[in-house]
Amino acid sequence: MKTLTVDLGDRSYPIHIGSGLLGQSALWTPHIRGRQVMIVTNETVAPLYLAKVREALTAYQVDEVILPDGEQYKNLDTLNLIFDALLSRTHNRTTTLVALGGGVVGDMCGFAAACYQRGVDFIQVPTTLLSQVDSSVGGKTGVNHALGKNMIGAFYQPNVVLIDTDTLQTLPDRELSAGMAEVIKYGLIADAGFYQWVSDNISGLMRGEADLLATAIERSCACKADVVGQDETETGIRAILNFGHTFGHAIEAHQGYGVWLHGEAVGTGMLMAADYGYRTGKITRAELNGLRVMLEQAGLPIVAPADMGCEDFLSRMRIDKKVMDGRIRLVLLEKIGEAFVTTDIDTNALNQTLCAGAQLGY
Amino acid sequence: MKTLTVDLGDRSYPIHIGSGLLGQSALWTPHIRGRQVMIVTNETVAPLYLAKVREALTAYQVDEVILPDGEQYKNLDTLNLIFDALLSRTHNRTTTLVALGGGVVGDMCGFAAACYQRGVDFIQVPTTLLSQVDSSVGGKTGVNHALGKNMIGAFYQPNVVLIDTDTLQTLPDRELSAGMAEVIKYGLIADAGFYQWVSDNISGLMRGEADLLATAIERSCACKADVVGQDETETGIRAILNFGHTFGHAIEAHQGYGVWLHGEAVGTGMLMAADYGYRTGKITRAELNGLRVMLEQAGLPIVAPADMGCEDFLSRMRIDKKVMDGRIRLVLLEKIGEAFVTTDIDTNALNQTLCAGAQLGY
Repeated sequence: MKTLTVDLGDRSYPIHIGSGLLGQSALWTPHIRGRQVMIVTNETVAPLYLAKVREALTAYQVDEVILPDGEQYKNLDTLNLIFDALLSRTHNRTTTLVALGGGVVGDMCGFAAACYQRGVDFIQVPTTLLSQVDSSVGGKTGVNHALGKNMIGAFYQPNVVLIDTDTLQTLPDRELSAGMAEVIKYGLIADAGFYQWVSDNISGLMRGEADLLATAIERSCACKADVVGQDETETGIRAILNFGHTFGHAIEAHQGYGVWLHGEAVGTGMLMAADYGYRTGKITRAELNGLRVMLEQAGLPIVAPADMGCEDFLSRMRIDKKVMDGRIRLVLLEKIGEAFVTTDIDTNALNQTLCAGAQLGY
Repeated sequence: MKTLTVDLGDRSYPIHIGSGLLGQSALWTPHIRGRQVMIVTNETVAPLYLAKVREALTAYQVDEVILPDGEQYKNLDTLNLIFDALLSRTHNRTTTLVALGGGVVGDMCGFAAACYQRGVDFIQVPTTLLSQVDSSVGGKTGVNHALGKNMIGAFYQPNVVLIDTDTLQTLPDRELSAGMAEVIKYGLIADAGFYQWVSDNISGLMRGEADLLATAIERSCACKADVVGQDETETGIRAILNFGHTFGHAIEAHQGYGVWLHGEAVGTGMLMAADYGYRTGKITRAELNGLRVMLEQAGLPIVAPADMGCEDFLSRMRIDKKVMDGRIRLVLLEKIGEAFVTTDIDTNALNQTLCAGAQLGY
């Protein structure tokens, strides 16, 4: 087992990464202060891992709420199912919520913990690659609104993140691809050496080789923990973690949440950001091509939806959270391994990228 | 104009109290950092004060959302109307929300500000006595759930509280009474001298004499600011502000939100807590009688609902937020002017109080 720390003063917390962690009571108990635990999971994950978690928590009053599975359920109505469960089982202020599942479960459970009785403890137990390397770390919680993704939420940190790499054995290929998009992101924005390592090992990673995946998770979490430790509430550098996300959110919103997986949209969004980077002279054609090939090897889409025109992108991007005073802000590449945030955008190059369609990345 | 400060480190903020504050642009502008303002108000307050606030804010893009009026609308569905308005008018992270109205508007607007894009600025402009002396100060925000009051929310502080005492001129008598319950509370729990002052001046206060009301608001806010400054998130002493509220919440929930006003329920709840205090030897029969008479002079109910039995109270009280590990916690009087929190409860005396019905306070 490897342990990293997210350094946030008195809200610091550990990330444990390893095989077989779910069933180890000793990893849970230091982070549960009351007698009550509410496991929040979904209909896909519950049959796979709920029993194992319950076994580790026999010392507590353990209740559960099983949500429908999918990004389209990440809304206030589904959030209310968690509050219903907590109140009908009279959970009090010392309860601990456990997010057992992917990013949707983690974001909703974390937001429920932030709001229930104005804040109770919670533990992240991410079971998808995407949530293990991204959404379970850093305290961004929330739900979607019909007019925008993650528009309603809170910064709220878990007590601990338990990443059991065994859960990846049951992960569908499409979900593995979606998670790999975020792994590739960390290399692109902050660590050229890691980017090269992922490129060299992409085949083994996609075959699900456990040692390679554990390394990818650890380096990704270390990068995220470092950035979050510098800027918890995204007043500055943390925004680079949104690389590819402004384009990606536009795709997700336009297609309807749940049609493209978040990681798939981010994958194509990163290629769009890199395409813009090539058009503005930040990266070479060979580097752009290398990213496109790696995304393809990772099983990710490399073409924006055929029915999405430039105007569709622009209108969606204007209501993105990163917009300030009406100006679109983008996270862009300075080079492979370094990103920056700017509102100073080359409109010509952006339009070319947004209209590139099937020519994206060529 | 009088100005108090809520002392919370880098989240400290002023409370301005005086006549004619709504229209003074100079009081608003230091607390608005972007170009957008969203006024959240309700259908009762909007015709009275919305135009005046708009006049003070002509330098900004001002939008508004007018909610239905009443505690029964303090829920996630109504909250979503605020998010709808913010997103459809593309308000960004630098927007400022303005809560123009009573406690329900303030609690919902504050919670919306806490959650919108994971947190934007907001300003409290309380227009009822109750919200001026209580809910606008201290950062408790949230909504009700069918199974419990204020069960979903956040601690989130405003940038400034603007208390324009002129708004009390349009306040219905019943609302003035409800606010007076909280004024009486501050004396009871923390300031015997102020309690005596309220007792001596209750007739003038209830006639709406402006100078008396301004003094009552200022001393109440000073008491609340002092307690909140010591314990923002209610891990200790702040709980004394809930004096009368555990009983009161039970009444509100049992009757259905909006039937009894919050302040009315708190008034009767305080009499129940004092009744228990008399039965356990903390206060004298004369003191208990004095409180009952003052509540009556303030136009507040002094008898619990006829259809509420002991068991109705107990079952509601068991899901109160102040319950810990299944034990009911109560705020009780040590004497007039001093309260304490305890789980060490004399079950006999509590049952007598809960069953006292029309004999409460005699």
